[in-house]
Amino acid sequence: MAVSTPVGVGGIAVIRLSGPAALETALPHLSVATLQPRHATYCRFDDVDDGIAVYYPVGYTGEPTVEYSCHGSLYVQRAIVEALVASGARMAERGEFTLRAVRNGRLDLSQAEAVADLIDAVTPAQHRLAIGQLRGGYAQKLKELRQQLLDLTSLLELELDFSQEDVEFADRHELRLLLLQISAHVKRLIDSFSTGNALKEGIPVAIVGEPNVGKSTLLNALLDDDRAIVSPVPGTTRDTVEEMLVIGGVSFRLIDTAGLRSTADQVEALGIERSRRAMERAHVVIEVTDASQNSSLSIIHSLPDSHIIHVVNKSDLLPSPPAGNSDVLYISALSGEGISELRQALLHTVGNINVSDVLMSNPRHYQALQLMQQALDRAQEGLDTGMPADLVVVDLRDALYNLGTVTGQVTNDQVLDNIFSRFCIGK
Amino acid sequence: MAVSTPVGVGGIAVIRLSGPAALETALPHLSVATLQPRHATYCRFDDVDDGIAVYYPVGYTGEPTVEYSCHGSLYVQRAIVEALVASGARMAERGEFTLRAVRNGRLDLSQAEAVADLIDAVTPAQHRLAIGQLRGGYAQKLKELRQQLLDLTSLLELELDFSQEDVEFADRHELRLLLLQISAHVKRLIDSFSTGNALKEGIPVAIVGEPNVGKSTLLNALLDDDRAIVSPVPGTTRDTVEEMLVIGGVSFRLIDTAGLRSTADQVEALGIERSRRAMERAHVVIEVTDASQNSSLSIIHSLPDSHIIHVVNKSDLLPSPPAGNSDVLYISALSGEGISELRQALLHTVGNINVSDVLMSNPRHYQALQLMQQALDRAQEGLDTGMPADLVVVDLRDALYNLGTVTGQVTNDQVLDNIFSRFCIGK
Repeated sequence: MAVSTPVGVGGIAVIRLSGPAALETALPHLSVATLQPRHATYCRFDDVDDGIAVYYPVGYTGEPTVEYSCHGSLYVQRAIVEALVASGARMAERGEFTLRAVRNGRLDLSQAEAVADLIDAVTPAQHRLAIGQLRGGYAQKLKELRQQLLDLTSLLELELDFSQEDVEFADRHELRLLLLQISAHVKRLIDSFSTGNALKEGIPVAIVGEPNVGKSTLLNALLDDDRAIVSPVPGTTRDTVEEMLVIGGVSFRLIDTAGLRSTADQVEALGIERSRRAMERAHVVIEVTDASQNSSLSIIHSLPDSHIIHVVNKSDLLPSPPAGNSDVLYISALSGEGISELRQALLHTVGNINVSDVLMSNPRHYQALQLMQQALDRAQEGLDTGMPADLVVVDLRDALYNLGTVTGQVTNDQVLDNIFSRFCIGK
Repeated sequence: MAVSTPVGVGGIAVIRLSGPAALETALPHLSVATLQPRHATYCRFDDVDDGIAVYYPVGYTGEPTVEYSCHGSLYVQRAIVEALVASGARMAERGEFTLRAVRNGRLDLSQAEAVADLIDAVTPAQHRLAIGQLRGGYAQKLKELRQQLLDLTSLLELELDFSQEDVEFADRHELRLLLLQISAHVKRLIDSFSTGNALKEGIPVAIVGEPNVGKSTLLNALLDDDRAIVSPVPGTTRDTVEEMLVIGGVSFRLIDTAGLRSTADQVEALGIERSRRAMERAHVVIEVTDASQNSSLSIIHSLPDSHIIHVVNKSDLLPSPPAGNSDVLYISALSGEGISELRQALLHTVGNINVSDVLMSNPRHYQALQLMQQALDRAQEGLDTGMPADLVVVDLRDALYNLGTVTGQVTNDQVLDNIFSRFCIGK
């Protein structure tokens, strides 16, 4: 049992009581003889309040659940919680309702994690990822993979049962094709992580350029324009030179870097080294040069051209905007000229992400699927080199195990604790 | 339409949409063709979330109402609100749902005010007052008064219609008795205000005594013992020397006063004058003397003996506790000895309040009923002195008017604005 609505005073608070004895525990407190399933019934709760009770024979948790909507007074919330505790109910742990939903097969573990992501979502992109994962497109994909892998493994295991008879049930060629197919799906999911995670955590954008070209002014110009709609997400700013910026519902992590130039100065060299590393992590690089100087910057990176935005700052110092070079944005960080075009350009770099794709955004899943991929590779190699079926099965079982940690078929308490400690009380 | 749950992130948020077109506005966003009345229906809201919708043909407001329980994500809450606004819904003002409930005759104005009191309630006493007032014992009392007063007025007005015929329909003696009875009820309500308001705002307790007897140490001892359960109610501390203390569910406002003694010092005299005034406002006085000094304090006040607690501090300095004087509490503010007995004694001073009595706790009502009382007194005087019926009726109408401002039969926008600005959004 827990207050499921946000902590604080409001018009309404909802107290959720879940478990086999939910109805019997709640009823003696209510001014009605019984609750019809899913019927919103106006009733008193002891002397404490008048509100609406709803009984779900199978609630969010997959268990009988009673939800009581009362006035959002702190006193009332506390009094109802205390009365239910006195009747034998227990305060729920963080995420306990969702954990029960997993245990009762209402959600798989990846969907449960999506619930926490959904609640934490601030930007539309984060929301789309989470609701997609919750609604199960992703879970469905994993389930299919699991089934295919199970089928494959069963075939090989069947062979083992008859190993004395030296029969080969499974066509090795067909098995290899099936395994390749599974591998390809897993690889696609793994590859989607960098996009999914970027959408969730903010797409890293490095602002690079020689010293004094106006990188920090540009950062401020981008932020100022938007500070009103930047949501203060605790923990998003990873270090002092990173700032969050939301454009068109997508969050970007802007990374201001130390100026790039050849230097003999050891300390400055360290700063530049850090810039290079920031650039390596970045999905997008904004390359800033100074209109008043004839500088050409050559940056070493592995990003596709479409993810590099060339910006010429201090365009206000030019007599007239140079024409012809559509690859370059002329801006003035100081006057704000060109800033909105730059924002559009930033958004454009993620334009080719199809958000209806199944995207993996969870680092835990990323890790597990990488282990799964390695096991699949070993199995593949085993099939290729004519390894005995029982050894191939070991690798397939390993792949299944790692997939199972994502969906929750395989769990351990520490993983569950980690996952559900992210939740709020009452969910 | 408004988010009715507390502001913030939580497991669940509830969005309430109320008005004649509530169902038609909500349905196009939901993944169901229709909503059965009062049936909790699991459905999607656009692309935004999966949740539970309940349709009330006559909701809290007295109008068709749809409530949608979604995940308590800020993004989801905002997205749903925005989608409903795009469909023509309007953001509700503070308290607008309750105001509509009043306009639609679901609550009278005094009950509406109780809703705000209930939501703000922190102590059990505040809660009991508010829930009592909300459930209508108080409203019922006022309604009866109003009916009696209406009957009385009608009788006299009937006489006026036949005034040419010089008939006296109403027995003047009986009228006087009826009026006296109404007056007595009103007076009882007015008298209950000081108790009701004290329960609501905290019972003022003055700690008085000569300088250096340990008043401030006592204040701290009382508070320290309890700080953990003192709820931080904004605005309860009226000035720097007041502290809130909750004992047995009742809040006390402890007022530390400047030491009382004769003085020639002008500044000190001002402080002492302030102590005297604090004492006048106090419902309870804790009179502190010092065990190590042979002081006798004579305090001028108008409180009954049962509301004065005599405390001898620094009892640790006495060789052995003096026996016999049960009117005096021997304590040591420093060691904490006797503090819990003092707390019990404080609670005892309010022990004779019957909380099931109808208590008036609202200053607005207090003012209106005082005006009503004055009008009733004038009417009484008119009847006594044989004043013409039409003049008596004017006073009775005045009394009815003032009663009507409490219950909401008479309203003006400014009063309503004042009342409902206390509410949160979504109630």
